[in-house]
Amino acid sequence: MRNQEKEEQLQPEGILTRVKRLYLLYNHWVLQVLLFFFILVDLSLAIFEEPAVVPLPLWVTMLVELLCLLAFTVRLVHYAKVIPRDKFWKDPKNICIIAILMLTLVDIIIYGALKAASCYGVRWSRVLRPLLLVNVTEGRQLRRAFRSIRNALPQIFYVFLLFMFSVLIFSLMALKLLGKRGLKTTDGAPYFTNYMEIVFDLYVLVTTANSPDVMMPAYNASYFYAIFFILYILINTYIFMSVFLAVVYNNYKKYLKEEVRQLVRTKRHKMVRAFAVLQEQRQEGAEPVVSQANWNQVVRLVHPDISNAHRELLWSVSDHKNQGCIGRVAFVQLADLLNIEVITLKSRPHPFHSLCPALYLSAPSHLICWLVQHRAFVIVYDLIILVNAVFIGLDEENPMIANSEWGFLSLYLLEILLKLYVFEPRAFFSRHNFWNWFDTIIVVSALIATIINSAIKSSGGYSSRQILDIVFILRVLRLIRVVDSIKRFVEMSIVSKSECVTCYLFLLKKQDIFFWIRTHLCRVPFIHVFEFIFLISSLTMKTVFPVRFRTIINTLIRIGPAILTFGQLIIVVYYIFAMVGMELFKGKVKYYEDTSDPASEYCGNPLLKGTPFAHLNYCKNNFNSVVSSFILLVELTVVNQWHVLSSGFTTVTHVSARIFFIFFHIMVVIVIINIFVAFVLEAFFVEYSVEKSDLQTSLEKKIKELELAVAEERLEDNLVNAMETCDNDLGTGQSANTKPTLMFKIASRRYRTVDALLQRMFEADLDPEDFAETDDPEAQNNRNFANPTFSSV
Amino acid sequence: MRNQEKEEQLQPEGILTRVKRLYLLYNHWVLQVLLFFFILVDLSLAIFEEPAVVPLPLWVTMLVELLCLLAFTVRLVHYAKVIPRDKFWKDPKNICIIAILMLTLVDIIIYGALKAASCYGVRWSRVLRPLLLVNVTEGRQLRRAFRSIRNALPQIFYVFLLFMFSVLIFSLMALKLLGKRGLKTTDGAPYFTNYMEIVFDLYVLVTTANSPDVMMPAYNASYFYAIFFILYILINTYIFMSVFLAVVYNNYKKYLKEEVRQLVRTKRHKMVRAFAVLQEQRQEGAEPVVSQANWNQVVRLVHPDISNAHRELLWSVSDHKNQGCIGRVAFVQLADLLNIEVITLKSRPHPFHSLCPALYLSAPSHLICWLVQHRAFVIVYDLIILVNAVFIGLDEENPMIANSEWGFLSLYLLEILLKLYVFEPRAFFSRHNFWNWFDTIIVVSALIATIINSAIKSSGGYSSRQILDIVFILRVLRLIRVVDSIKRFVEMSIVSKSECVTCYLFLLKKQDIFFWIRTHLCRVPFIHVFEFIFLISSLTMKTVFPVRFRTIINTLIRIGPAILTFGQLIIVVYYIFAMVGMELFKGKVKYYEDTSDPASEYCGNPLLKGTPFAHLNYCKNNFNSVVSSFILLVELTVVNQWHVLSSGFTTVTHVSARIFFIFFHIMVVIVIINIFVAFVLEAFFVEYSVEKSDLQTSLEKKIKELELAVAEERLEDNLVNAMETCDNDLGTGQSANTKPTLMFKIASRRYRTVDALLQRMFEADLDPEDFAETDDPEAQNNRNFANPTFSSV
Repeated sequence: MRNQEKEEQLQPEGILTRVKRLYLLYNHWVLQVLLFFFILVDLSLAIFEEPAVVPLPLWVTMLVELLCLLAFTVRLVHYAKVIPRDKFWKDPKNICIIAILMLTLVDIIIYGALKAASCYGVRWSRVLRPLLLVNVTEGRQLRRAFRSIRNALPQIFYVFLLFMFSVLIFSLMALKLLGKRGLKTTDGAPYFTNYMEIVFDLYVLVTTANSPDVMMPAYNASYFYAIFFILYILINTYIFMSVFLAVVYNNYKKYLKEEVRQLVRTKRHKMVRAFAVLQEQRQEGAEPVVSQANWNQVVRLVHPDISNAHRELLWSVSDHKNQGCIGRVAFVQLADLLNIEVITLKSRPHPFHSLCPALYLSAPSHLICWLVQHRAFVIVYDLIILVNAVFIGLDEENPMIANSEWGFLSLYLLEILLKLYVFEPRAFFSRHNFWNWFDTIIVVSALIATIINSAIKSSGGYSSRQILDIVFILRVLRLIRVVDSIKRFVEMSIVSKSECVTCYLFLLKKQDIFFWIRTHLCRVPFIHVFEFIFLISSLTMKTVFPVRFRTIINTLIRIGPAILTFGQLIIVVYYIFAMVGMELFKGKVKYYEDTSDPASEYCGNPLLKGTPFAHLNYCKNNFNSVVSSFILLVELTVVNQWHVLSSGFTTVTHVSARIFFIFFHIMVVIVIINIFVAFVLEAFFVEYSVEKSDLQTSLEKKIKELELAVAEERLEDNLVNAMETCDNDLGTGQSANTKPTLMFKIASRRYRTVDALLQRMFEADLDPEDFAETDDPEAQNNRNFANPTFSSV
Repeated sequence: MRNQEKEEQLQPEGILTRVKRLYLLYNHWVLQVLLFFFILVDLSLAIFEEPAVVPLPLWVTMLVELLCLLAFTVRLVHYAKVIPRDKFWKDPKNICIIAILMLTLVDIIIYGALKAASCYGVRWSRVLRPLLLVNVTEGRQLRRAFRSIRNALPQIFYVFLLFMFSVLIFSLMALKLLGKRGLKTTDGAPYFTNYMEIVFDLYVLVTTANSPDVMMPAYNASYFYAIFFILYILINTYIFMSVFLAVVYNNYKKYLKEEVRQLVRTKRHKMVRAFAVLQEQRQEGAEPVVSQANWNQVVRLVHPDISNAHRELLWSVSDHKNQGCIGRVAFVQLADLLNIEVITLKSRPHPFHSLCPALYLSAPSHLICWLVQHRAFVIVYDLIILVNAVFIGLDEENPMIANSEWGFLSLYLLEILLKLYVFEPRAFFSRHNFWNWFDTIIVVSALIATIINSAIKSSGGYSSRQILDIVFILRVLRLIRVVDSIKRFVEMSIVSKSECVTCYLFLLKKQDIFFWIRTHLCRVPFIHVFEFIFLISSLTMKTVFPVRFRTIINTLIRIGPAILTFGQLIIVVYYIFAMVGMELFKGKVKYYEDTSDPASEYCGNPLLKGTPFAHLNYCKNNFNSVVSSFILLVELTVVNQWHVLSSGFTTVTHVSARIFFIFFHIMVVIVIINIFVAFVLEAFFVEYSVEKSDLQTSLEKKIKELELAVAEERLEDNLVNAMETCDNDLGTGQSANTKPTLMFKIASRRYRTVDALLQRMFEADLDPEDFAETDDPEAQNNRNFANPTFSSV
């Protein structure tokens, strides 16, 4: 997006202003948030529509929906104004939105008319609502995920063909082998006599949901029949399901790579065009260059919120030879440079230092600083957390335990206050100190909730369940901080190699460890013994676990943003299935809060009497509202017992309702969950290869070099490698007094956008010198998938 | 192995003969088969020992076991004679075998003494038995799989740590949130009140086995608690399980690559040493070479069963410049060349042709040949199979249906006879015509079984159930042949591009398709119309399914040999768990054939009264014999209902028995099944990349070039690409009359050994010029894992 903006800066003044204003307005965050708000409203209408969680009159929901439609239309018209007309009509997503809007309008009118005439009507256009989320300009990640699914479908279909053939053959064999035996299932029904039932049962067996029950009657008859089922499970559950994953993973990787390649190519192409506008000829015959002044102007326009220091850093990276101008290659890299999130760290003196330097610089104050910054401080608090965990596990009715909570709370509060005393508050609460934020929020909210709870308890004599729940959740969440400690511990065991070496050299020099312990242990403070134990244990850790803990933690963190895309994807699919399911099954199965009601035995539907569905008390798993539909669909995604759930709904409707559940299984479990697994696998492999080879973008390397030059002069007396720990320490200003006024570091979550992560994922396959100057037609054709397609006015 | 043999040829005569004889004897297939027979006997002793399927007196099993121990000792002594003493004692697998033999002997003596004194004894050494399978010289694949597991363990442990932390935190939260609500499960038990129970329940939820039951009480209480479970499933089931797969896959790939790399390096090193012995200096200052005579001698010694023609082909590949001698690089490739399975196709005239040429070359005979070789013949038989499938599905009690079976059988027999008439029988039944063998065996055995069945039925008046079962299985298996047809159909849709183009060009020339149909349809025989439809449909197939069906089929085929290794692996693990399980749980749960016995209600153990285990009729899932133990372990591997199974056994023993089941789950489901999935994924990716890039070993390329030169002159008039179809057609001699007397082709399962496949898998990472002449100590140290370690005498 920024590239287009940049490019656009270079157009003649007149057109520029109007289009630029419209474009900037279109991309303004308020409008984007507003759009998502309207989509959210539109989607959440399902809560208020029949069958509703909170019933509202028909005219209210319809009015709100019309309002939403209006908002989408306005947004679309705005988009049409921003991009050229031919591009607008060529883009399938715009056509989609128009079609959705029209169809929804038609449906509202028809449904309204039918309801006015008191006829039966189906709000079929509700299925289309989540497609808006896919087709708005901002849904690029989601569209990509859907494209990736669409592309994988033909191959999945191939495997599915073979898989179904195998299921059919096995079913035929089962029919012939077991159908005439007169076997009975546990509930006395005939076993394996109907071919279609066998096919369904064996399909369910692939999902393992009815294992081993489906096998038991045959197995009870003879050991040999077990072979049949084992063979079936081996072939269909293990091999075919793995091949499904392989196909999905392979396609996912291939098409994602292709899309990213084209995205990068488009970006570079546009940067080259921007360069062509900005370039100037310094010397005759020399390569055209862009001067620093022009470059500064562009960056200022594109990124008004960037600091001067950051901009200068970027320039020094681009112009690494200090020529005062940059060539095309360096200019094209600008877009990537801007994607790397650089944190500007400003060293400020502590407010106390400014307010009363005498007190802050006194000996007791220094002692406090030393203590808080010491590693033992962290370890002591980790121990406190562990003790707290045990106390939480104990019965909170015990007054001693209940009161101990106050002790723990004050300890945690003390920790935060001490840290705030020692570290500069703005650095402590800087954007990237996740754990500081986490601690503070958890502790402060726990304090507030506990106080409120006590107040209610002491006044009314009974405690509010909701607030107690919150208190409990907050208490347990506090324990998560241990992950940070484990991570730090394992990392230190790798980082502190130099320390270990020092320690060992020292021991060797003394020749005799016992001598060393005897002579030193009495003299050194207790804390040093502690550190010695820590060093030995971390050395052991290092030997036992040679692989970095960080890889796994980083993978888990990196999966975060991807889950958001998958979350949207799954919501779109769930929403569609929920709408269809609600139309098909609403009100067929009822849940009774009052268990004394005899109807609660069979979920209010006599057809369910004696079925496993009713027996297992699954009544609340129904399609009677959008919320319960979503939860039911989650249960179907988890697969277990899905045959019981589906049989419940087929019992109350018709056996063909199975199609709905099988189709859901194929779409969600075989396709989407596999794509999710593929993403996790790929993210892990990228993280692992990055960790292993320390492969880094050339840009990042340069920034790191520069940063090291800054960092090393500050930390040269620190045994711990500066690069490894600055993640935790720089922000909290461990050596606040000696560090320079300004520092940079690359954010630990280095990728501001998912695109950049993807680019990194496939960087090895991208040619850095491929600037796509040769406007190959294929690239041109495919360019319009980059959003917004604002390439020429 | 061959390399060592080759090398060994070059030693002085005296030592050579003795060692060579011993070595050849050691590697003789009879001795290897005998070894595996004794291992099998040793393992299957579990069937006859207490708790037995077929009880035998104690002295019989002990005597047999002692016999097996003797056999293993003899084999080990033989091995010690073959390889140098220091190598023998350095090799951990020999130490392992010795330890196992000693321990088993000690155990037999102790157990025998205890039994003689009528004391209680445990045959603990039975657990060690499967380890013999791992540690014998021939168990290399298995050892590699175990090494790969061992290497993955530290990283798995890391993830497991985080995973368990997450489970513990969630359990604590569940205890606090739900423990005090007074909720009840379906069977009225208190819900989520005991921390250890919650941890177990949530662990089971990770395996999805108790979803959604574990959630229902909380969900019935409030919608909001569903969020807790959904979050739990997302984090622990989906993310952590995927990370487990990623870690296992990553490690599997990494260590396998490393092992293969060292294996290849060792092989090359030995080949270089062999070359050093064989080499001669042709010219002064020139590179040393090996003459064809020496080379021939080596190949003849190493591979006595290789045909002269095949050897000449190999020589021509090695000496591609026709110099009469080969350099070091070409010589080193010999080992790889010998690993490529080359099929020598000899074109022989049909026996009928030799016997009565007049008849065989007559017009009707030619017509038969033309018909059978026509594509329509295959299609007609595919249709027959489909009709047969429908008939099988119908009720076989109907006399019409029962009699139709004779019709189908005779049709299939006719097909085979016709094919035998047309194609040369030895070519038809050559080793690589899998489908011909398959067809013939199935049809002939079905014929025999049906005749026996009819004979029994007509004589005794009732049909034997066993024979009927076999008849049914054979009938259904016949249908599998359709896979071959689907494969051929989809492949043709790709191969016959040239045909399609011809067809389209023809249509274009005629300008008007209706005109063309009108003018041609009446004149061309019906069969051409059929072909036209086929072409159109295959063109559609090609458009709809652009990716090769073959990739998927090939992956499935390629997984075959790997499954054998995994089968052994799983048997080793199952055997150990079965032995432990039998000692722990034997006789606790009983199965009653007679369901009228009241004890069958609760599996003969009053403790099980009213438990889900008894209710679901799982009595036969017990540890009362090695067979039922294995089947139970398979059910535990499939995971579903494993909590019910394990709770059954904890009920009859103690709650700590859960450790056995959880440990089994971690070992088998988290580790081994993931390794299996990793293998399938990798096999698919290799196959896919081979298909995509047509990446081929340089050696295979050369063979293909040579082969093409032979093949093309034969098939130049064939529109179908010769290379694509020779897999199916060459063997059956489609154009038997025109082809030359000798042809080669690379077997479609190109890899004779799993090693060669692995080498191919990681070929991209292996440096072909890396001959490891610089004897780096690491490679030397690791060399002894190649078996048998017969490197120097």
